[in-house]
Amino acid sequence: MTILLVLLTFILGLTAVGYAWLVYRKMMAVGIDDPRVAELSQIIHKGAMAFLKKEYTWLAFFVGGVFLLLLGMWKIGFGAGPAFAFLLGALCSAAAGWLGMYVATQANGRTTSAAAKGAGAALDVAFSGGSIVGMLVVGIGLAGIAVAYLFLSVKSLAAFGMGASSIALFARVGGGIYTKAADVGADLVGKIEAGIPEDDPRNPAVIADNVGDNVGDVAGMSADLFESYVNSVIAAMAVGFLCTDLYNDGTALGLWGVAFPLLLAGWGILSSISGCLLISTKVPYLEKGVDWVLLHAEKIERVKKILDRIRGGDAAFALRVGIFVAGGKMIAGAFILSLLCFFTKTFHVFLAVTSGVLAGVLIGFVTECFTSSDYAPVKDVAQASETGPATVILSGLSLGMKSVLFPVVLICLATLISHALAGVFGVACAAVGMLSITGIALSVDAYGPIADNAGGIAQMSQLSPEVRKVTDKLDSIGNTTAAMGKGLAIGSAALTALSLFIAYAQAAELSAIDIMNPGVMVGMLLGGMLPFLFCSLSIEAVGRAAQAMIEEVRRQFREVPGIMEETGKPDYEKCVEISTNAALKEMVVPGMLALVCPLLVGLVLGKAALGGLLGGAIVTGVMLALFMANSGGAWDNAKKYIEEGNFGGKGTPNHAAAVVGDTVGDPFKDTAGPSLNILIKLMTVVALVLAPLFI
Amino acid sequence: MTILLVLLTFILGLTAVGYAWLVYRKMMAVGIDDPRVAELSQIIHKGAMAFLKKEYTWLAFFVGGVFLLLLGMWKIGFGAGPAFAFLLGALCSAAAGWLGMYVATQANGRTTSAAAKGAGAALDVAFSGGSIVGMLVVGIGLAGIAVAYLFLSVKSLAAFGMGASSIALFARVGGGIYTKAADVGADLVGKIEAGIPEDDPRNPAVIADNVGDNVGDVAGMSADLFESYVNSVIAAMAVGFLCTDLYNDGTALGLWGVAFPLLLAGWGILSSISGCLLISTKVPYLEKGVDWVLLHAEKIERVKKILDRIRGGDAAFALRVGIFVAGGKMIAGAFILSLLCFFTKTFHVFLAVTSGVLAGVLIGFVTECFTSSDYAPVKDVAQASETGPATVILSGLSLGMKSVLFPVVLICLATLISHALAGVFGVACAAVGMLSITGIALSVDAYGPIADNAGGIAQMSQLSPEVRKVTDKLDSIGNTTAAMGKGLAIGSAALTALSLFIAYAQAAELSAIDIMNPGVMVGMLLGGMLPFLFCSLSIEAVGRAAQAMIEEVRRQFREVPGIMEETGKPDYEKCVEISTNAALKEMVVPGMLALVCPLLVGLVLGKAALGGLLGGAIVTGVMLALFMANSGGAWDNAKKYIEEGNFGGKGTPNHAAAVVGDTVGDPFKDTAGPSLNILIKLMTVVALVLAPLFI
Repeated sequence: MTILLVLLTFILGLTAVGYAWLVYRKMMAVGIDDPRVAELSQIIHKGAMAFLKKEYTWLAFFVGGVFLLLLGMWKIGFGAGPAFAFLLGALCSAAAGWLGMYVATQANGRTTSAAAKGAGAALDVAFSGGSIVGMLVVGIGLAGIAVAYLFLSVKSLAAFGMGASSIALFARVGGGIYTKAADVGADLVGKIEAGIPEDDPRNPAVIADNVGDNVGDVAGMSADLFESYVNSVIAAMAVGFLCTDLYNDGTALGLWGVAFPLLLAGWGILSSISGCLLISTKVPYLEKGVDWVLLHAEKIERVKKILDRIRGGDAAFALRVGIFVAGGKMIAGAFILSLLCFFTKTFHVFLAVTSGVLAGVLIGFVTECFTSSDYAPVKDVAQASETGPATVILSGLSLGMKSVLFPVVLICLATLISHALAGVFGVACAAVGMLSITGIALSVDAYGPIADNAGGIAQMSQLSPEVRKVTDKLDSIGNTTAAMGKGLAIGSAALTALSLFIAYAQAAELSAIDIMNPGVMVGMLLGGMLPFLFCSLSIEAVGRAAQAMIEEVRRQFREVPGIMEETGKPDYEKCVEISTNAALKEMVVPGMLALVCPLLVGLVLGKAALGGLLGGAIVTGVMLALFMANSGGAWDNAKKYIEEGNFGGKGTPNHAAAVVGDTVGDPFKDTAGPSLNILIKLMTVVALVLAPLFI
Repeated sequence: MTILLVLLTFILGLTAVGYAWLVYRKMMAVGIDDPRVAELSQIIHKGAMAFLKKEYTWLAFFVGGVFLLLLGMWKIGFGAGPAFAFLLGALCSAAAGWLGMYVATQANGRTTSAAAKGAGAALDVAFSGGSIVGMLVVGIGLAGIAVAYLFLSVKSLAAFGMGASSIALFARVGGGIYTKAADVGADLVGKIEAGIPEDDPRNPAVIADNVGDNVGDVAGMSADLFESYVNSVIAAMAVGFLCTDLYNDGTALGLWGVAFPLLLAGWGILSSISGCLLISTKVPYLEKGVDWVLLHAEKIERVKKILDRIRGGDAAFALRVGIFVAGGKMIAGAFILSLLCFFTKTFHVFLAVTSGVLAGVLIGFVTECFTSSDYAPVKDVAQASETGPATVILSGLSLGMKSVLFPVVLICLATLISHALAGVFGVACAAVGMLSITGIALSVDAYGPIADNAGGIAQMSQLSPEVRKVTDKLDSIGNTTAAMGKGLAIGSAALTALSLFIAYAQAAELSAIDIMNPGVMVGMLLGGMLPFLFCSLSIEAVGRAAQAMIEEVRRQFREVPGIMEETGKPDYEKCVEISTNAALKEMVVPGMLALVCPLLVGLVLGKAALGGLLGGAIVTGVMLALFMANSGGAWDNAKKYIEEGNFGGKGTPNHAAAVVGDTVGDPFKDTAGPSLNILIKLMTVVALVLAPLFI
């Protein structure tokens, strides 16, 4: 029975991969007319793949080393399971990242070409690229978990998550450093010192900058969400297997507790696919089926109106409808699955899942309120530019610090409600609920950088400004919708970390982690300190990498003859190489921090202190992640708001002040902030895998 | 027996007050020659006292309200003790603040006059003022505790601490807002827009700025250290009474556990006085005794050399020797007291105390490394000015985030060592050890703003620039030595909060605060969020208050005729009034947060969740306090380093970039950062006092 259910999950995972394959075939059928566009797309593609290749070579040593270490622990009761699960997790994450990046860098030039034909065509291509990335992540993730569970054991699953998390942390940090170093180098020397526009082909760092968007926003984000998705499912399986809270007779949920999260995630894949099909209907083989369904649905007047609006090319509306349809199906499916798995406790589990989904959506809404220029907070930051850069910084910092209030309260409410209904298993299921529609959420997230890249290519190929306008519009729509994705990511990170934390306590045979115990309190202080140290290290790494890039770009402007007159060709590859090497070198120390600290504290101060370390890291990690992401987002959008002509507009001292804010915010929101989500889960999952060592 | 020991403590407290009185008489004998200096000193004195009067009027309502609430709880098992102890604590804190401010604003003009005669004379007057402030704080504090203990009970002592902490939080936040609003208003409009130098009498905000230095750095800091000092002693008494960890036979320490911290603090007063006497020997009545001692000590060649250097006018050396002598006597005394109180466990308690002292001194040293321009970190921030304000901000932020590492490790080591030696009582005694020489540490801290004010008065009275140079030199020496005081303050805050936390758990009859319990975890997340919210609120408050001041100063420059030609007199009082009102209005919300949140969480989520709240708040509070204080300090000194002529010096774009950093750092280091120390202790002590409510 269980084997059948797990096989079913595996097939659902493959379905997502199959869907991605169909969309890929359709997308590749779109031609690139302009040879210059094709060439640039190819250069970016090569640069991005070269980075990944180099990164994976480095990581191969790391993964191999950890694999051997885990295998070496075979004799002390670990068995061989964790070692192979770790390897599988790392490989799956790497495969999802590699394939996603491959597709995204094929989609950018095609989107540029399509944009020349209109917004609808461009949306179709860009969203196709995004949905391939999204579906690959969830498909490979779920299929991987199913394989690990079938061939290894529940206990080994944590090591699968650890593999995914380690790759994710390095990819996020490395990608974040790469993209910001290239961005700062291109902007500071190109835009400000040489006075040429953004994405100008004369700028030596322009290719590195466009490669960086893919490395950071596609590969980094894919690895990040792969990790979130996989760990939420694994955490739920781990606590579900042992959970005795749900039924009053004291029996553990056992296999049903393992199967439910898998099925929930599997149903999420189907829901995501149906949402994606609404946004972009022309998928080979599926097309006819979709047409048939829509033909019948159109008979309802209300549905017809919605479909007409989507077909009319309202991209923002289409994305929103797609997500809502997926979310609605998801919640309906959660009810049916709860009924099937936990007959007498249907409502308990269902409402726990729903509380997670609602909290995620509301956190997304709050995030939007604090980071979109449609609302007062960002306008206040923009207004602060009238008294100079210092007040822009202060208002952005205080906005970020204030913005932690509501998300934390929502996370707390979801925790309390889901725990009251279905124990720790409920908390874990709330996180799975939040992330079950990762497929479509990531599609929406990933299509943004594709559109952005398409715009860059248009600019560099000197196409008509109309093309750029189309891609800019698509990009900005994606940014707004992506706020919900961010909310789901941070909310689920907190809930998943809590579930993994409980799983660690169970695995380490801890009956309580008492903060009155000074060892635990010391662990908490050390754990609370780590996210601060991590942020400092990654911000400094960005600074050093950017410095190296600035010097190279300055050197080229100085030494390459005729670069400004477009008679001499800048050395793009050199800049790509600098970003690549700097990112790889700088990602090592912050990445290792997360792996070494739990091990050290566990060995030196004991398993209870390690529990305290994890608790402290979760608390400050969640706060800093929210603070940095929202401050960074607000500065970014305040700058854009001024560029739209408010508070003086471009070229004024106000704009210069806002640019300072944006520059400070870049490593906040693109390097340190998003990595913290991974950091706290990686530390917890490392502790969980190594728990037998500390008993 | 106990009564005798407590009476002895009371007398030692009065000794400090008596010493302050003798120094005050000596200081008042110094005349002010220049009538302009006398007048300005008087205006500042009046402005500062007017602020305190208004602040205390507001706080009287608050204190009265809380007093009545506590009295109203009489019937539910509280008794009348807590209400009266709260009142006494608040009154003692207010008295220490009032007297200290009174003296400091008498000392400033006298220091200006003395500075005309040379550095030695100026140091003598300024340090006299500082040591009166310092001795009043410890004297009134210790005498107050003794009275509360004699007439009320051990249980009521926590309410004494709560009274001191509430006043301290409002004084720190209010003072911090006042001083920064005035500072920004004076600098931004005066220095940058009108182009007149600092402390120019034509600037309408100049008096408010000088009043602000007293309100923030003297009154705010006095209340802060009063609170730290009093709470560390009270926490040690509370856990000492019930402590069963020290002896293996399971008996509680009882009265010896109460007497030891009192005697330790009392001995600290004597040690501080002897250190102060070394720095400034001419104290009426004591002079002869000191001379007699020094005459005999001089027979040792090494001592003679040291004394000659002090008499030669080396102020930095004198301060350092004074602190080391006090510290040395303190440690020797701690050994004797441990021997007397805990015969068989002498070394256990003594080493616990010593570990605290050492940790405090080392944290001070680390603080200096991160915030003094003698070391690489601040130089790096200064160098970042070459690429503009954004990199100055980023390097300062990452410096602050990194700077938490060593202090947290030192706090953890002190906790582990002192707990291993003497249980929770050991941790509490380590905090008392750190703070026992508050008398001299605060003297050194408080003399800085007096010297600074003296310089301001010299400038406004248009005395020769030589006078200003003398006071600037004194101020900068004080800043360096003050780093140690800051280290003691933050280190002791963490240890005191931990002890109070344990005392809360005992009072609430909690056997464990288990973070695996979701209520506790939710409490931790909420508690971890509060310091972020608090920082945001206080940074915003500074922004709003500064805005009001900017507008008023601009208005005066525009509307008052002949202000720039010195024919029209600016309306100083209006600016003082604006700062006063803004500070009082803005301090309410952040201040109430600390009082209301523990109560709400305790009532709604229960006593274990409240324990979690306190744990979370301690963790993020300590991190943010270190981060903000060190970032702010580094930006300040990076700016000064550039002003000394490095990286281009004054007037360059580099300097402008560094000024942005300094402006961002001002509310960090003077408003939000130092308030956090108080916040975490106030929340814990409120929980401790109200603990019977939650059982």
